[in-house]
Amino acid sequence: MLSLVSQLKHIASIRAFNFRQSSIIMAAKKRALALMAPGTEEMELVITVDVLRRCEVDVTVALVQEGETGSDDLVARCSRAVNVKADTTLASYVQQLGELPDVVILPGGLEGARLMARAAPVGELLRRQNQENKLVAAICAAPTVLAAHDRLFAGRRLTSYPSFREQLTEAGYVWEDPAPDSPNGRVVRDGNLITSLGPATSFDFGLTIGAALVGQEVADKVAKGMLYK
Amino acid sequence: MLSLVSQLKHIASIRAFNFRQSSIIMAAKKRALALMAPGTEEMELVITVDVLRRCEVDVTVALVQEGETGSDDLVARCSRAVNVKADTTLASYVQQLGELPDVVILPGGLEGARLMARAAPVGELLRRQNQENKLVAAICAAPTVLAAHDRLFAGRRLTSYPSFREQLTEAGYVWEDPAPDSPNGRVVRDGNLITSLGPATSFDFGLTIGAALVGQEVADKVAKGMLYK
Repeated sequence: MLSLVSQLKHIASIRAFNFRQSSIIMAAKKRALALMAPGTEEMELVITVDVLRRCEVDVTVALVQEGETGSDDLVARCSRAVNVKADTTLASYVQQLGELPDVVILPGGLEGARLMARAAPVGELLRRQNQENKLVAAICAAPTVLAAHDRLFAGRRLTSYPSFREQLTEAGYVWEDPAPDSPNGRVVRDGNLITSLGPATSFDFGLTIGAALVGQEVADKVAKGMLYK
Repeated sequence: MLSLVSQLKHIASIRAFNFRQSSIIMAAKKRALALMAPGTEEMELVITVDVLRRCEVDVTVALVQEGETGSDDLVARCSRAVNVKADTTLASYVQQLGELPDVVILPGGLEGARLMARAAPVGELLRRQNQENKLVAAICAAPTVLAAHDRLFAGRRLTSYPSFREQLTEAGYVWEDPAPDSPNGRVVRDGNLITSLGPATSFDFGLTIGAALVGQEVADKVAKGMLYK
């Protein structure tokens, strides 16, 4: 039979072990912020968020609003009239923000991207994200949002929906057409900037962000579970 | 200068032409009903709806509710916590229904499919749809919804998320693993029943339904616009 002292030591060691365990789990939980707005491409948003949540990334979907006011119910009508309800507004998110998220994600959709291009808080967040060398990920029309905010990341290699190639090249980016057989699929990564082409490359986009945050092994397992590749 | 009579004839002929034109347009607009419930796989829902709206199909997203009451705001929390707002409830849709839709779509997601399996109005609608030889389309976990409603379509060839293979075979279906190089991608079609595997085959699923409703040419154009294939 254990003495009281050794029992207490035993309990303390279990607690310390549990504490270390949960610290490891807490440290491992990466944080993503996915922006959305009226006119966002719903497939690009939903696939990316879903894939990252399958990768055990803590994803917040934040609604970018025009001006100070906006829809009270957090619902935005996306590009093909699917109504998606955000978890919060970008304004609330930024107000309560301690550390920056591990990645900021910009889905495409022409009208959604135009709104994000006009929204000063989006530019401010992207600038801070880049200053701390944290990931920014943009797909389809969304790389034009970077260009609109003082040509953030200019000089970098990126891709986008092909119709924005000329506009982005003129704005000072090195536009690339990613090969389907590249390790991450149809995605371009240059340092902390991850970009992709459009709706059908959203799985590649989400899995590349997932691999960057939680490792290739986890991303591969998630891809298999979704019957991808 | 035209006489009054010939002017009136001219106007009448323009009107008749416009009427014929709009009749043609109205006749061409196919109608789809996509069901959703709490726990529906959001990618499978959103990709299918988005792809079909790109094909100019008139899609209604209807929320299946437990019992008579439910969420007033039409919002359901999907399988990976993306909140999607439906266009209507299934109860309202059925109440106002004249002609049956051209296709009823069942997305997967285990909890969503379980709820649809328990919902008598879903079974009733699927039965009517089959009686009139109209399309039913199910993906991932959703083919189990057919089995739950008196083994509707039993004896047919179908596919599903692979983990349901045994259950569906025992229920009397002829389970198939669709080849990636089949004309419609990873989809099985047997008469008015279209089935597919899971999240990553949602584009194939949506495009196959689109091709069935509005033709392969339109579906191919939509696929190209999304940078698919």
